[in-house]
Amino acid sequence: MIKVEEAIGIVEANSTKMPIKHISVRKALGYVLAEKVISPIDMPPFRQSAMDGYAFTHSIRHQYDVVGISQAGDHENVKLKSTEAVRIFTGAYVPDDADTVVMQEHVMASKDSILIATMPEKNTNVRPKGEQIRKDEVVFEANTLITPAAVGFLACLGITEVAVYKKPKAAILVTGNELIQPGKKLKKGKIFESNSVMLEAALQTIGIEKTKVYRVKDNLKATKKALKTILKKYDIVLISGGISVGDYDFVKEALLQNNVKELFYKINQKPGKPMFFGSKNETLVFALPGNPASSLTNFYIYVSPAVKNKMGFSEIHKPKIVRKLNSEIKNNTGKTLFLKAKYDETNVTVLEGQSSAMLNTFAVANSLLVVPETIENYKKGQLVTLLPID
Amino acid sequence: MIKVEEAIGIVEANSTKMPIKHISVRKALGYVLAEKVISPIDMPPFRQSAMDGYAFTHSIRHQYDVVGISQAGDHENVKLKSTEAVRIFTGAYVPDDADTVVMQEHVMASKDSILIATMPEKNTNVRPKGEQIRKDEVVFEANTLITPAAVGFLACLGITEVAVYKKPKAAILVTGNELIQPGKKLKKGKIFESNSVMLEAALQTIGIEKTKVYRVKDNLKATKKALKTILKKYDIVLISGGISVGDYDFVKEALLQNNVKELFYKINQKPGKPMFFGSKNETLVFALPGNPASSLTNFYIYVSPAVKNKMGFSEIHKPKIVRKLNSEIKNNTGKTLFLKAKYDETNVTVLEGQSSAMLNTFAVANSLLVVPETIENYKKGQLVTLLPID
Repeated sequence: MIKVEEAIGIVEANSTKMPIKHISVRKALGYVLAEKVISPIDMPPFRQSAMDGYAFTHSIRHQYDVVGISQAGDHENVKLKSTEAVRIFTGAYVPDDADTVVMQEHVMASKDSILIATMPEKNTNVRPKGEQIRKDEVVFEANTLITPAAVGFLACLGITEVAVYKKPKAAILVTGNELIQPGKKLKKGKIFESNSVMLEAALQTIGIEKTKVYRVKDNLKATKKALKTILKKYDIVLISGGISVGDYDFVKEALLQNNVKELFYKINQKPGKPMFFGSKNETLVFALPGNPASSLTNFYIYVSPAVKNKMGFSEIHKPKIVRKLNSEIKNNTGKTLFLKAKYDETNVTVLEGQSSAMLNTFAVANSLLVVPETIENYKKGQLVTLLPID
Repeated sequence: MIKVEEAIGIVEANSTKMPIKHISVRKALGYVLAEKVISPIDMPPFRQSAMDGYAFTHSIRHQYDVVGISQAGDHENVKLKSTEAVRIFTGAYVPDDADTVVMQEHVMASKDSILIATMPEKNTNVRPKGEQIRKDEVVFEANTLITPAAVGFLACLGITEVAVYKKPKAAILVTGNELIQPGKKLKKGKIFESNSVMLEAALQTIGIEKTKVYRVKDNLKATKKALKTILKKYDIVLISGGISVGDYDFVKEALLQNNVKELFYKINQKPGKPMFFGSKNETLVFALPGNPASSLTNFYIYVSPAVKNKMGFSEIHKPKIVRKLNSEIKNNTGKTLFLKAKYDETNVTVLEGQSSAMLNTFAVANSLLVVPETIENYKKGQLVTLLPID
């Protein structure tokens, strides 16, 4: 039995990065850059007007003849005398002879000339070439997560493809003779199997869209055979159930016989104690507890950071949140507790129904409140640490 | 020109809920329930053992004969005398004659009998039938967002289908003669078109997976014709560019000629002032500024809450975050400012490059710092309000 922090460290140390692939920027949202990106152009590529107005050479003069027009998309480099201006629009090319743009609201315009009522300072409303980024400068460093703004920035530089870490392929192996598929008739002594759809959904929230689900009966031979296939094809293997100390739990044996290296088994925490973590080559195996709420807790604490590490994230844990506790908490277990909790702008409330089988509480929780194994009680009003979930 | 809070209120008031559809629980992640869900069963459906151990009738007695076995999935209701126990596993049916389960770690077991070393209290380790939920009780109220835990809970009750609000269908109309598609050669005076991929990605982050992109030249006829088609087929229409006061902006005219009702035009904010919001039947039209950073700002402030409202979310705005400001902010504009900012556990830093054309700053921001129009300055160290983005 190991401590929570140790277990987290072992998971992180063993989740090696996925191979690199090239992907269209249009499909890159949620991926992480595997290489730094260099700008192929100056942005903006030319001096741009930041306003609708008139471009001219700044002087003490207020009246100018309007001798041309520059619309966005044009590139007519109108020659200007010091007494002349061009009508110009936002984003349009500023003629080389002009250094300043006056907003149209600040001029009195007749057919062929303008009188500037409020004179801007020199260089006003002209975006310099390369103001955002210059050619050959770094756009993004490696390990940057691709957000909507990043997609936009890459596209505005004309970049259509980037190198990212592949997303891991995931499989779920469900064990348990007591399980019946939802939609079928519930027989006596049986329960509906819910962990596979729950874990599939949880994987989706961190960007793993497709997960293959395998099901086996509670016996060594079937479990071993299924694992043999799965270990060859997937990067992340989640096993649901069959890992506690009962006589009918074959999973650990089946893993060891498939040469999965045990990295830890059992963690000093509640819920979620009976968990096996191992690896074979680059494939990670998480044998999660069969109890739904324990399973989901360990997904958030161990599986999610491992997947993010494989995907190249620089921040694999969500930033912790600190809130004032609404009630007292006792911890006489000597274990780290992960309590389903709901926080608002200032406080956090521990929810009822913390049993490891109870998913209904989890469905309304927005965080897990962490009570370290060394803490015997938290007083009402104390500041406590939360891991956000959503 | 209207105030930001008014504009937010008008968007919310006009974004009516989408029609209802029935969807498989397996595919329901991220949807919002349109009707409350009632439990079809007791959960657990029978008295379950919470441990691997032995089930017996609690008494002063410590020694019991082991007369049977109850594995998970079995339903053999072993008859027990007061001197008898059954071997039992986690999740298994507790025989009707037994009221207590002792953990296997707390007994000394021989072949046919056990001696209980640490006697548990009566009813220990037996999960009552219906402990989580009883048949006909409410599982979730309408307007509950379907999370991984909710998917799991619905499945464990045997529920395979739920009624949810449909997701809106979205289209993006891109205008602008100055725009060239990334991947093509950049000509003089032109820039790469990046708003469509950026807005597509932003829509993906709130659950709208597919968006149709239309492009037109900057003229009234083409814009009007494209809008006629789009308005018939989509629930959310985003228009990129062509909405400022320049002579070459036809979008507003094309909207009005298509009988789109103007709900507001121009907001007292920076960046993002030139925005049109209107509706035709249930379809919402957001004509966003052409500047990428302005466009994305207004996506987060106006479009995202509207989409969430249509999808039935009970909370359409992300919870605000309060942090201590790292620097001074001056606001002599009389407008509400939305500044790209990065917060950590205690502080917030306003990022450089707040120009409305600058996307690079947005790509590293995790929030927008809101400076209300009535505030002329924030001092260093002051607590300020942030809207998180991600």
